Amino acid sequence: MSSSASRSPVSVVGLGRMGGAIVAALIKAGHPTTVWNRTPGKAVADGAVVAGSAAEAVAAGPMVIVTLADYGAVRSVLEPLAGELAGRTVVNLTTGTPEEARALAAWAAEQGAGYLDGAMMALPETVATPEAFFLYSGSREVFDAGRALLETLAAAHYLGEDAGAAEVYDLGLLGSGYAALAGFLHALALVDAAGVRPEEFVPLVGRWLHGMIAYIPELAREIGSGDYTEPSSPVGMNRAGVGALVRVSLDAGIDPGVHVPLWNLLGQRTADGHGDDSFASVFEVLRRERS
Amino acid sequence: MSSSASRSPVSVVGLGRMGGAIVAALIKAGHPTTVWNRTPGKAVADGAVVAGSAAEAVAAGPMVIVTLADYGAVRSVLEPLAGELAGRTVVNLTTGTPEEARALAAWAAEQGAGYLDGAMMALPETVATPEAFFLYSGSREVFDAGRALLETLAAAHYLGEDAGAAEVYDLGLLGSGYAALAGFLHALALVDAAGVRPEEFVPLVGRWLHGMIAYIPELAREIGSGDYTEPSSPVGMNRAGVGALVRVSLDAGIDPGVHVPLWNLLGQRTADGHGDDSFASVFEVLRRERS
Repeated sequence: MSSSASRSPVSVVGLGRMGGAIVAALIKAGHPTTVWNRTPGKAVADGAVVAGSAAEAVAAGPMVIVTLADYGAVRSVLEPLAGELAGRTVVNLTTGTPEEARALAAWAAEQGAGYLDGAMMALPETVATPEAFFLYSGSREVFDAGRALLETLAAAHYLGEDAGAAEVYDLGLLGSGYAALAGFLHALALVDAAGVRPEEFVPLVGRWLHGMIAYIPELAREIGSGDYTEPSSPVGMNRAGVGALVRVSLDAGIDPGVHVPLWNLLGQRTADGHGDDSFASVFEVLRRERS
Repeated sequence: MSSSASRSPVSVVGLGRMGGAIVAALIKAGHPTTVWNRTPGKAVADGAVVAGSAAEAVAAGPMVIVTLADYGAVRSVLEPLAGELAGRTVVNLTTGTPEEARALAAWAAEQGAGYLDGAMMALPETVATPEAFFLYSGSREVFDAGRALLETLAAAHYLGEDAGAAEVYDLGLLGSGYAALAGFLHALALVDAAGVRPEEFVPLVGRWLHGMIAYIPELAREIGSGDYTEPSSPVGMNRAGVGALVRVSLDAGIDPGVHVPLWNLLGQRTADGHGDDSFASVFEVLRRERS
């Protein structure tokens, strides 16, 4: 499509599933791409230059994209290269905690490096497709300068100067997704026990979950206002519904555990005298637990 | 729109939130509608005829739609009317267990009544809108004969002759939805603790959950085939991710309970020697628990 010469060079450290997909997307977009992995011999996309060391990879261009297993691994690779980082940009897509991201951003600033923390809301196979989106936080200047390149990987959302923000959102989104998938797997076990095949159930799950997504902004509005007094779906009614799920799971010999936490939260809200409030008010139990 | 005279009469027993919405939809569609509620004095849509007794309501037409609190309430209303039910159709939209539905279908057959069990995948405010869909199981003949009327309430899905099927699907769908909403509320508590406002987070949650819904058919395919050996998202990696969620929740003073069951299921799968299998393989732990 475009000549490599017209695109800025970029280095990628870490060639796991996501790192490999990122390299392939960069090469396809015409960026001269230098790669390095702690364990040598990883397969890489045709056209990538395999560096002999992390230092060599970092030296190959103004931006290094890092996708490693955790922040400990990131530090063990970058700290020996502190002298090489001044004037370069580190885009760290490794998953970790907000605190780890903030600490690494501060360390990068001390080395004179630009730093952007990122979270990849994607599977390896959705990188560079419209399904994927990546979140970024940290230096606005670094984001603006790198945005065109980053958009070749996935739609790029900038969340603000707090370098920890991408990890905060990442954890929240991962949690929402994990809970939905755990609920689906439990539901499938329940209908499977009654002889329903996955392909019969799945289209209706999709339809129902789209309705739940459409309901989320209403929950958020109630939570934002703190007004839970016009419930179309009160706590007490929902507690009965979740209780039925637990009971029927037990009767079918299916572990009901996935639904026990919500049953407890609804019970706590009821015990607090708010059984007639709306479902969204369960948020107040979760929020109240904050120390 | 249409003259009442051209539409078949229908009776509605139970005027809770959903019953009231159903009566309003029937009246709007031009069906002469007779209603009865155990507690008198409930507000009903203009045009509904309020019967003086359950027997009077049942006698007013060929079909009675029942939406009560539970199957015990349904039995306490219908059993004294056994002699009135022959030749009529009972459409029972009350929430209960598959076994309760099957037992009531058998009882209705003994009285010479047609029986259709139903589940309302809707909120009161979405009845008679494109968002709602109702599930039905039991007599195919009764469903076909009543379908036009039932479609005025919500899109009607027929699931088969097993009267319990609507309750099985209902529980599965409710469970999927509850888990997704519980995950959202937990995620909102987590990002709230970091100073993120609901309206900032909600659009990204919607986007991420749409991606999860798109992923569900792939999970179902793996589960249907039993082949978990080409994982883009292995058990061990997901266990680390869910573990991070639990840890960060604890650090933020947020009850991590919503994610503990999935963490345990992933741990069980790992302990069983399947840490490199795909995420979908957690289903085997849930299925295995069946007695």
